[in-house]
Amino acid sequence: MDTKHVLDFFYKRRSIRRYKDANVSPEAIDTILRAAMSAPSAGNEQPWHFIVVDDRQKMKEITKFHPYSSMLNTAPKCIIVVADVDLQRYRGYWVQDCAAATQNMLLAIAQLGLGGVWLGVHPIKEREEGIRRLFNLPDHIIPFAIVALGVPDEEKGPSDRYKPERVHMNTW
Amino acid sequence: MDTKHVLDFFYKRRSIRRYKDANVSPEAIDTILRAAMSAPSAGNEQPWHFIVVDDRQKMKEITKFHPYSSMLNTAPKCIIVVADVDLQRYRGYWVQDCAAATQNMLLAIAQLGLGGVWLGVHPIKEREEGIRRLFNLPDHIIPFAIVALGVPDEEKGPSDRYKPERVHMNTW
Repeated sequence: MDTKHVLDFFYKRRSIRRYKDANVSPEAIDTILRAAMSAPSAGNEQPWHFIVVDDRQKMKEITKFHPYSSMLNTAPKCIIVVADVDLQRYRGYWVQDCAAATQNMLLAIAQLGLGGVWLGVHPIKEREEGIRRLFNLPDHIIPFAIVALGVPDEEKGPSDRYKPERVHMNTW
Repeated sequence: MDTKHVLDFFYKRRSIRRYKDANVSPEAIDTILRAAMSAPSAGNEQPWHFIVVDDRQKMKEITKFHPYSSMLNTAPKCIIVVADVDLQRYRGYWVQDCAAATQNMLLAIAQLGLGGVWLGVHPIKEREEGIRRLFNLPDHIIPFAIVALGVPDEEKGPSDRYKPERVHMNTW
């Protein structure tokens, strides 16, 4: 792939919080989850699970303990990324592994013509416990993040946020 | 983009640890860094810096304290991802932000026909301190990960690691 097309792929991903009154197909969800599970992980542990949510009542419950989640009142679906810490052999890397999977999801969502946004959960304890209660998670499963998604009802152009002062050669 | 092309994009990224005796162009490094900086971050803080390393002596020094980094003896370049924790407004999310940027780098590397691998640094203190000493990092800069890269000298086909048992609907 040439440079322009490579960069277009990444620049297309924007945080989309407004959605049309339209559903997201099971095929799209399948593609998004396959993208997620193709992320790298420490020792290839793949320490992740995904809860696909279209239960409006549960989405509304999330807004009661997550302060930035009001789009869940209208999003047709969200996907909750959780970690199974018992799957770790290299301890301490599950957060990075789940973040890589979440980033793959957001890139796939954009490429499918959908829109999504990453809502942070871990390490805020109140949000983790809210998700744990609502979805009956056992102790070894840690809520990591929520991805809200839907058919975009806002337009955002590609964004290049390159900052040359953040690049260093061979030393700080 | 159709589903097949979307998935091909993600499946193409594999961990590549063997490189030909060939360099990586400054243009490719620029593309990889632009991909990195287009990742999402909590509050759009972009709390990252990148150290591009082609100093062979420094790469060899890394292998003395990082047990899985022997490919740095032959890789033409590596990029060290570090975090500036003073840029945080939403505390606790810099690890996820840097992981999303690192994942973008690995996807871009694969799309450019190059090969790379993610070497974990944070939260292993010995590796963090080794990088800190070698690159003279100030206290508010935390070493996060190393990405080794080069022209691939091994072939790995696309990998679909989908596991249906990791998908749940509306509850655990």
